Amino acid sequence: MPVGTAATVKAVPQETLEKLNAEIILANTYHLYLRPGHELIRRAGGVHRFMSWERPMLTDSGGFQVFSLAKLRKITDDGVEFQSHLDGSKHFFSPEHSMEVQIALGADVMMAFDECVETPASWERTKESMGLTHAWAARSLAYWKAHRHEVPWMFEGRGPRAKGPEDKSFEGKYQALFGIVQGGMYADLRKESAERLVEMDFPGYAIGGLAVGEPREVTREMIALTLEHLPKDKPRYVMGVGYPDEIEEYAKMGVDMMDCVLPTRAGRHGLLFVREDPKNRASAVVRMNIKKQEYAEDHGPIDAGCGCSTCARYSRAYLRHLFASGEPLGATLNSIHNLSFYLETMERVRQELAVWD
Amino acid sequence: MPVGTAATVKAVPQETLEKLNAEIILANTYHLYLRPGHELIRRAGGVHRFMSWERPMLTDSGGFQVFSLAKLRKITDDGVEFQSHLDGSKHFFSPEHSMEVQIALGADVMMAFDECVETPASWERTKESMGLTHAWAARSLAYWKAHRHEVPWMFEGRGPRAKGPEDKSFEGKYQALFGIVQGGMYADLRKESAERLVEMDFPGYAIGGLAVGEPREVTREMIALTLEHLPKDKPRYVMGVGYPDEIEEYAKMGVDMMDCVLPTRAGRHGLLFVREDPKNRASAVVRMNIKKQEYAEDHGPIDAGCGCSTCARYSRAYLRHLFASGEPLGATLNSIHNLSFYLETMERVRQELAVWD
Repeated sequence: MPVGTAATVKAVPQETLEKLNAEIILANTYHLYLRPGHELIRRAGGVHRFMSWERPMLTDSGGFQVFSLAKLRKITDDGVEFQSHLDGSKHFFSPEHSMEVQIALGADVMMAFDECVETPASWERTKESMGLTHAWAARSLAYWKAHRHEVPWMFEGRGPRAKGPEDKSFEGKYQALFGIVQGGMYADLRKESAERLVEMDFPGYAIGGLAVGEPREVTREMIALTLEHLPKDKPRYVMGVGYPDEIEEYAKMGVDMMDCVLPTRAGRHGLLFVREDPKNRASAVVRMNIKKQEYAEDHGPIDAGCGCSTCARYSRAYLRHLFASGEPLGATLNSIHNLSFYLETMERVRQELAVWD
Repeated sequence: MPVGTAATVKAVPQETLEKLNAEIILANTYHLYLRPGHELIRRAGGVHRFMSWERPMLTDSGGFQVFSLAKLRKITDDGVEFQSHLDGSKHFFSPEHSMEVQIALGADVMMAFDECVETPASWERTKESMGLTHAWAARSLAYWKAHRHEVPWMFEGRGPRAKGPEDKSFEGKYQALFGIVQGGMYADLRKESAERLVEMDFPGYAIGGLAVGEPREVTREMIALTLEHLPKDKPRYVMGVGYPDEIEEYAKMGVDMMDCVLPTRAGRHGLLFVREDPKNRASAVVRMNIKKQEYAEDHGPIDAGCGCSTCARYSRAYLRHLFASGEPLGATLNSIHNLSFYLETMERVRQELAVWD
């Protein structure tokens, strides 16, 4: 899933995302709550209508951003008090409030409010945090069950072709809610967390709190053992991963969904993903730093085997020039290539696994 | 003509410019000479191939940028010594060197090297500067006549579909060179400058040194009287203008070409052009500042009568959010609308004048 933090996948127009066959995007609850505000988006008919996107969308719970971006956090059993990273204003998120905001945003999938423990953390600290996540998951679930029919696009239609209140195509549909497995880097806690959430019976499950600085082997181990305790007939989503070879590996382990800012963030920083052998789309992934002098007169495409609109038209030399000159078109063209690379990778994996058909 | 200073119309992909029916764009000689360098672009086969653009293109002479951007200029009869605004390195531009650089860049139209006098300037100072411009125009013309068959795409083909040296579609063609009329805000000097350049017999003529701070009435007066002394059967180009109502007025006065950074620069700053009556495309031009609070929940398009891809899909509320959040997509979508607004205006004027057919 491409990440569209502020209801925009940075530097890439929605019509381009459609051409790239992006099937679902993610938006960040924390950012949209602060700006432009969830009530404004509710009145607009949800994020779909606000940003003109009619395909599926997922919102996170805001928990991770509260812990990573906000200032002066104060955590109680009830929720989290924090200061906006934008203007220092004070806010309070509880599980109920996160659900209320996410229902207003109207994404197809929303996430239970969770606490993200710092890394590294002791077993005791991790277990305590996990307990809070489970209590908050139960409260998120209860709120969702009571309010899930309030999603704005039920009454307004959604996306660029929504016809307004007379559009009945989404009538009776509602958002899904996923629980988030925590438990840090402790196998017993991960197992306990997965089992506890499965008892609560969510429409889908996420594995959170990974890719936060731990070695890649640990990430893989935690994913593998957590998957064993999650039902195969429901979506299983690993949050915030990863490099192209990682997401391929995790998909083959049984992960159904992943999100990552890497294709767009790396693109804006001039880091491009290519196949070592352009003709073999399953060959090793090479990271190309377009800033390098060696590309100054390289008139070939980023990746000769890539079918994206950037590779079809623009040369490495031109992209290097755009990057070196600080031209905004560089971020757009690089992001298009990286998103295409990720989506192509996942499409190939789906074909190899012969699932999702 | 949209302005593509560094071989990119800021924040707008080439394929989008094509869809907007941009027939010709401008690139800046000064910027491309400094970065990535004209020899690199010559080896790439010219700006057309470098940036993947096969439609017409014009380069300015570098003169205006040397006078407005560069530091520590030293002007002699021979040329101008200046320091780069990027790194302070020393460079020298003469008429011959400007021609050499522009031939390497390979635009379809290049401009004679001129001096731009400061504003306001006395009649004596303006006359002296104009004399230098005329001497430099003669030297530009002589160099062009001797070297115009060296344009790189003659040997390489040009644009995204160029086939390399075997592509003969541009064989025997060469760049055009326009002379630039100067003379400040003095009617007698403008007349003298136009007559002197017409004697030299250029393929086309530009009117330079306007829209540099003088009242709009003076700009119009200078254009009107200069046009009287320029042949109607050759292109007449006013450099660096203007607002949509100005370019419409000048076109109807007989100006064939204009360039302006305004549609893209204003777009990046959240300033959008709309028609007062969206259904009447000849009604007054209104400037909309998308930052304003009044657009926060305005779910209509920028301009309901506009046919651009931004107005077809995105709301004022969403564009305001993108701008307020500093999202790069805002610059792209705003620039697309403003470019479309300018190009639509010129298309309507052409139909009204029933020329160019």
